[in-house]
Amino acid sequence: MSSSSYETLKPLFDPASMAIVGASDDIYKFGGRPIYYMKQSGYQGPIYPINPKGGEIQGLQAYADVREVGAPIDLAIVSVPAKFVVDQIAACAEAGVKGAVIFSSGFAEMDEAGEAAQRRLSEIAAETGIRLVGPNCMGMLNVKDRAIGTFSSMFDHGWPREGNITIMSQSGAVGSHTLVLARERGLGVRGWMTTGNECDVDVADCMLFAAEDPQTEVLTIYMEGCQNPDRLIQALETARRAGKAVVVLKVGASEVGAVAASSHTASLAGADAIFDSVYRQYGAYRVHSLAELLEVSAACSTGRYPKGRRLGVVTLSGGAGVMASDAAEVAGLDVPPLPQAAQDELKALMPFAAVRNPVDTTAQALNDMGLLRRNLEVMLETGGVDSTLLFLSSVGYNERLMAQIREVLFGTLDQHADALLVASVMVQAEDKALLEEREVIHIEDPSKAVEMIGVLADFHESFARPVAEAPPALPASARPAPGGILNEVEAAALLRDAGIPVAESRLVRSAGDAVAAAAELGGRVVLKIVSPDIQHKSEVGGVRVGIEGADAVAQAHDEILAAARAHAPAAAIDGVMVAPMLSGGVECILGTSTDPVFGPVVAFGLGGIFVEVLRDVTFRVAPFGIDEGRRMIREVQGYAMLEGVRGQAGADLEALAEALARLSVFAAENRATVESIDLNPVLARPDGIVALDALVVPRAG
Amino acid sequence: MSSSSYETLKPLFDPASMAIVGASDDIYKFGGRPIYYMKQSGYQGPIYPINPKGGEIQGLQAYADVREVGAPIDLAIVSVPAKFVVDQIAACAEAGVKGAVIFSSGFAEMDEAGEAAQRRLSEIAAETGIRLVGPNCMGMLNVKDRAIGTFSSMFDHGWPREGNITIMSQSGAVGSHTLVLARERGLGVRGWMTTGNECDVDVADCMLFAAEDPQTEVLTIYMEGCQNPDRLIQALETARRAGKAVVVLKVGASEVGAVAASSHTASLAGADAIFDSVYRQYGAYRVHSLAELLEVSAACSTGRYPKGRRLGVVTLSGGAGVMASDAAEVAGLDVPPLPQAAQDELKALMPFAAVRNPVDTTAQALNDMGLLRRNLEVMLETGGVDSTLLFLSSVGYNERLMAQIREVLFGTLDQHADALLVASVMVQAEDKALLEEREVIHIEDPSKAVEMIGVLADFHESFARPVAEAPPALPASARPAPGGILNEVEAAALLRDAGIPVAESRLVRSAGDAVAAAAELGGRVVLKIVSPDIQHKSEVGGVRVGIEGADAVAQAHDEILAAARAHAPAAAIDGVMVAPMLSGGVECILGTSTDPVFGPVVAFGLGGIFVEVLRDVTFRVAPFGIDEGRRMIREVQGYAMLEGVRGQAGADLEALAEALARLSVFAAENRATVESIDLNPVLARPDGIVALDALVVPRAG
Repeated sequence: MSSSSYETLKPLFDPASMAIVGASDDIYKFGGRPIYYMKQSGYQGPIYPINPKGGEIQGLQAYADVREVGAPIDLAIVSVPAKFVVDQIAACAEAGVKGAVIFSSGFAEMDEAGEAAQRRLSEIAAETGIRLVGPNCMGMLNVKDRAIGTFSSMFDHGWPREGNITIMSQSGAVGSHTLVLARERGLGVRGWMTTGNECDVDVADCMLFAAEDPQTEVLTIYMEGCQNPDRLIQALETARRAGKAVVVLKVGASEVGAVAASSHTASLAGADAIFDSVYRQYGAYRVHSLAELLEVSAACSTGRYPKGRRLGVVTLSGGAGVMASDAAEVAGLDVPPLPQAAQDELKALMPFAAVRNPVDTTAQALNDMGLLRRNLEVMLETGGVDSTLLFLSSVGYNERLMAQIREVLFGTLDQHADALLVASVMVQAEDKALLEEREVIHIEDPSKAVEMIGVLADFHESFARPVAEAPPALPASARPAPGGILNEVEAAALLRDAGIPVAESRLVRSAGDAVAAAAELGGRVVLKIVSPDIQHKSEVGGVRVGIEGADAVAQAHDEILAAARAHAPAAAIDGVMVAPMLSGGVECILGTSTDPVFGPVVAFGLGGIFVEVLRDVTFRVAPFGIDEGRRMIREVQGYAMLEGVRGQAGADLEALAEALARLSVFAAENRATVESIDLNPVLARPDGIVALDALVVPRAG
Repeated sequence: MSSSSYETLKPLFDPASMAIVGASDDIYKFGGRPIYYMKQSGYQGPIYPINPKGGEIQGLQAYADVREVGAPIDLAIVSVPAKFVVDQIAACAEAGVKGAVIFSSGFAEMDEAGEAAQRRLSEIAAETGIRLVGPNCMGMLNVKDRAIGTFSSMFDHGWPREGNITIMSQSGAVGSHTLVLARERGLGVRGWMTTGNECDVDVADCMLFAAEDPQTEVLTIYMEGCQNPDRLIQALETARRAGKAVVVLKVGASEVGAVAASSHTASLAGADAIFDSVYRQYGAYRVHSLAELLEVSAACSTGRYPKGRRLGVVTLSGGAGVMASDAAEVAGLDVPPLPQAAQDELKALMPFAAVRNPVDTTAQALNDMGLLRRNLEVMLETGGVDSTLLFLSSVGYNERLMAQIREVLFGTLDQHADALLVASVMVQAEDKALLEEREVIHIEDPSKAVEMIGVLADFHESFARPVAEAPPALPASARPAPGGILNEVEAAALLRDAGIPVAESRLVRSAGDAVAAAAELGGRVVLKIVSPDIQHKSEVGGVRVGIEGADAVAQAHDEILAAARAHAPAAAIDGVMVAPMLSGGVECILGTSTDPVFGPVVAFGLGGIFVEVLRDVTFRVAPFGIDEGRRMIREVQGYAMLEGVRGQAGADLEALAEALARLSVFAAENRATVESIDLNPVLARPDGIVALDALVVPRAG
């Protein structure tokens, strides 16, 4: 089942016919290069040069107007000065062109007039259904069909290998750099799209296309921001369910970087931590460099994901075995001892070897390739591991040995089509190409190789995860948040009615009412001044804790009021809050905020130093189900506290997960009126949870 | 001033004459290869083949016995079966040979007989002064003189470039792999030494040599363990003071890795965290992969260390500028806005550019190389930055542009000899070599480039740090730890006498004495059973806290004794401890333990969850000065707690640092009798610190 987005974007990724608007005879001009490259490389579809002068361009019949072509056009490449773009796009739409790539700059990235013109482009797309990429972009590429809708000169230096990786980038320069890196590293590329100013098609659209596209197995993405978070999430989840790896370089994590990014594409960045949690939630792998973007994409493109986290290591060097074991621990992989039978067989084959795992064959294994082959077979068949690393040092420089090793690798992989076998060996360029052709995963550095196996295992786990639970329904008592300011007691009641456990509290306006409320609540109580004008209540004597007995409550009430009036004579005072004095459990913080990109998001952390000193907080976009709440809880560094340390009972994790999910639903349903919610502290106790304080901040305006 | 170690190792690193013991005519044999390679590559010193058959070997006069040579021999390469090695080394020593490299395996790594033979080798070295490398090693290399004391076949595929990097490795296979990596990446190598079983010369010896060696600027090390921690520390500190970078790949951090390492070289690993802290203390950079080992070494080999952490970025792509800014934050580098004058000048040059920093010239900068040159000059001269990253994407593939860019880079660096300018550009192999020749730091990936600049800045800071303060003298009251078991009261008194603040406590044996002690201490007190046979004192009712008043103290004393006797009738009971009830401040843990490699080490962490849940602990080898104590305190993740959070006063950091230093001196002085010390909790308060509990565990045996 494919989305309409898929159908409308297919002509842009796989154009069967192309028009070049602003076509030129000069092959160095942006309007000349695509024609030149396509003729050179053998694009099979018709190419229609469009130029007011008509005549012939680069040997092809040219048309003065795209409307004169009189044949179906999948994709128009628009390379004309900014001031002509709107008219040309309107003409394309009229001619029934399905999509257009707009190279031209001078739009929203420049000035207000440019912004207005870009808005007009968006409108044309919305009105006519033509799909627009750019403006201010570097275009597209289809490797198999050799459809070249870009002015990049990269093809002068070689053509990327055809494969299953689709590269998408908001930045043209980074996108083109990434494509060159992919070509140089021999990665197999299915398609390439740069989205620039994103007047219509954005990176998330392209991702959704790639997630549904049968030819794509890996989504390789550079992004700076996001205009359509719902589509981003839909694309991530579609890819995950299809078992396709999403590898994303999202920049702007730093303050300087975020400023630079927003001045670069003027796209809304949103809080970086929220992007991070969205990627994590949907199983995308976030990288932090171009090198890593390529490495992870390359590893994923073979489609060999290990079904578990047990790693077997076969090495010529004991030292490399130690390195691999160290790297495995960091990557969360086990290097288990091999089953005794496997160890016995290996020991019989190689009396000189260490056979426990890592298996250290020493350099002697190279004297008998049958032995190396058998060694790998034992590992793959009876080693009880999910992946195998083979470290061969610089043996690849010995041509005779490398030819034999290649045969061992190809033979082994032919017989174990699903096995994840990663070869870590220094090879010459030709051998690298031969290995890549046969899709042997080849990573020179053994530590990096293990890291990548860990990443592949993460992907497998993410692919295998069931579809997320639906967000829970709120109880019947739930009611919408009113628009204005709420005091603590109102906020607590609102959230309690939504099924979120907040301690009962009463707002009182006399000492007598305070005494009555305290008696009703029972036990020791807390009293606190309630006033929108007094922020730091403790500091002005506005809070009293652990009060017990009618006289003490009455006295505390009066003293609080007196202190508040003395401190802030002009403050509006709602009254005094009386709440039970609760303690015990682990202090947590639950909250929501409104992200400029993703809207309502829920935050979870342990209280006190965990949040304040260690910034140990995790986020989720609202709404979400209880299962996602459980995952949030397990993500914080201090999780062990909730499980119970020093013999203490663990916290009620189910109640906590449920509260997180309900809070997410409440925040999502009230996004129009609520800016943020703060529950701090929340006591997570063995027999349930309870928030001691609730703050609901309304949206401004 | 050079150490005797330097003088004795020089003939091994720079041999002016060589003997090959076990020389062979067969150039594929271990005893044939070194002769063959040296003849091929033009080693200038005399080569003496030693073989019982005498005659000629590979065209050189051979000798039946090394004692027959009758000329000075700097280095003998010994490649004979294990059973002949001891006799041959004895003969070498008799012949006055200064050093020998022993390839032969079959020693401590094999069995007890091998271990005994290896011990004999150590004895010969100690008795005669001959320096021995190996056995079970891959030998040495001097790149400049082409002295080749190894059987590695790597020279079939090329020769490493000459330079200032000395590579040292315990593992022969990893060492040889590292050398091939260095050759392939074009790194300049000064020398190479693999130490194998380390019967005499160990990695630390080689490091100390390299630290003193005028030709070495970078120490590139692979190690699995250490036999001589004092020499390791001496080498690290000598290198630091000489401004030489130490880059170390120490393996065995993981549990599986540590087991594999100990089975590999049988060397004592010690706790990995201690190694980590030693490297940190002495400014060595610990890497976790071979790739990183080479990358960092390459960056350091140019000797251009930035004097501060301000980074300028010049980029063709806004996206790359964002990436660089993100990476800068991770690396602890600032990307400050350029001074207004510099911005104005750049804006005048390039009206189209973003000039704040990152400076985004866009691809238009490539149309005018004078502009690019001027841009770099402004950055280096008036940009107020300490280092500059230049990102040029894949422009290196355009030969015409790259030739111009090379000139810009060379010209700029000629005029700014000390500037740290890192070029991040994809280049073809020939250009890479040209850049390396002129020592342009070239790192393809921009994020990695920034990371490396951060590493270089760390090195500068470490080089600039003054020599560590001497450990403090203990007060006159300090006394040696007695050998046996100490109870809490004795342990507290012992440490208090050494100037470490532990709360006063009294051991009493009657209720009356308890009352008197409590009165003397004043305020509320804690009472605790003191018995070597009762471990979990709270659980058996052996602890009472917050006791005040004579009656209550007497009663608590009697109840504690009764409870202890009821629970453990056979337990020896020393009495009851009475101590003041103290609170407040931040809970810390100070302790010492005895590492199998480094001996007494001091640990510091914040109490409770910081240590137990977050494992937030830092270590130092004892003894050390107060400045090192200060650094320890600042290293823990929860440091902000000690500075004071939520408006609380900070802890007395000086008192804490002093206690750490004193504890280190006490542990070092009492290493013969004390296994470990535990001060937990220590209250770090604004007006000083105090330990509430002290445990001193004697050494076993």
